[in-house]
Amino acid sequence: MQVADFLRQSHQKLVTCLPDDTLQVVANAMYAHGIGAMPVCEAGTRMVGIISERDLVRVFARSDLSELQYLRARDVMTSRVMTCRPHDSMQAAQEIMHAQHFRHLPVIDGSKVVGMLSLRDTLALRLIESEQEVNLLRDLAVTARH
Amino acid sequence: MQVADFLRQSHQKLVTCLPDDTLQVVANAMYAHGIGAMPVCEAGTRMVGIISERDLVRVFARSDLSELQYLRARDVMTSRVMTCRPHDSMQAAQEIMHAQHFRHLPVIDGSKVVGMLSLRDTLALRLIESEQEVNLLRDLAVTARH
Repeated sequence: MQVADFLRQSHQKLVTCLPDDTLQVVANAMYAHGIGAMPVCEAGTRMVGIISERDLVRVFARSDLSELQYLRARDVMTSRVMTCRPHDSMQAAQEIMHAQHFRHLPVIDGSKVVGMLSLRDTLALRLIESEQEVNLLRDLAVTARH
Repeated sequence: MQVADFLRQSHQKLVTCLPDDTLQVVANAMYAHGIGAMPVCEAGTRMVGIISERDLVRVFARSDLSELQYLRARDVMTSRVMTCRPHDSMQAAQEIMHAQHFRHLPVIDGSKVVGMLSLRDTLALRLIESEQEVNLLRDLAVTARH
């Protein structure tokens, strides 16, 4: 399956934030949408980084609490981000996440971010595909015996 | 596979916190150990709740930042927690997480917490098992043809 098909099928609503958003705005968006990470974008869709629940936990652990109000998404985001493209296979996308120990992978089309994959989503999809193949092979084995 | 076997095989080091720990102590432990949730325990191992990255993000989103320093794990944790036992099957544990939309499930032995399962871990395990079965069935199909 291609990444584009997966995004279409999962009806993903892409949530992004701005580099100048406060961490509280970012946390609110993550919590409200039940997501673990989102692209940080300038001028609508040009991605300059991603920010995750884990980034928020890290900064919360390491900062003076009185300074939290002054921090912005750009101060906390990861700016060196691996990406994939809509026509990549889901398996290739998952291999990038696995090899690099990433839990999220943005999908980029030209210069625009168009989606966000999570390791959990890709695992769940591969499991469904694998279990379908098990069932098919079992059926074939039964048919072959008769 | 039983939950106990999975915990043994994954060499999980259980990390817990105390109900009176500050959120910064909790965030530090989560970040340092790279975990998404942990049991909150009194008197060593008696679990009174679990606290997750998402709980921290929620409280960060919804609280006055000046109040964060006064909050403790007990104020933020989820105290009504589903659990599983060491002799349960991994599949049963995963079904609980799936049905209840939990990402984590503590493992309880008697009155003690002995481990923590994550939805991602259980998905990854089922995928390995399913892919092994695909390979086995394919081999059988080839053998049957000769």
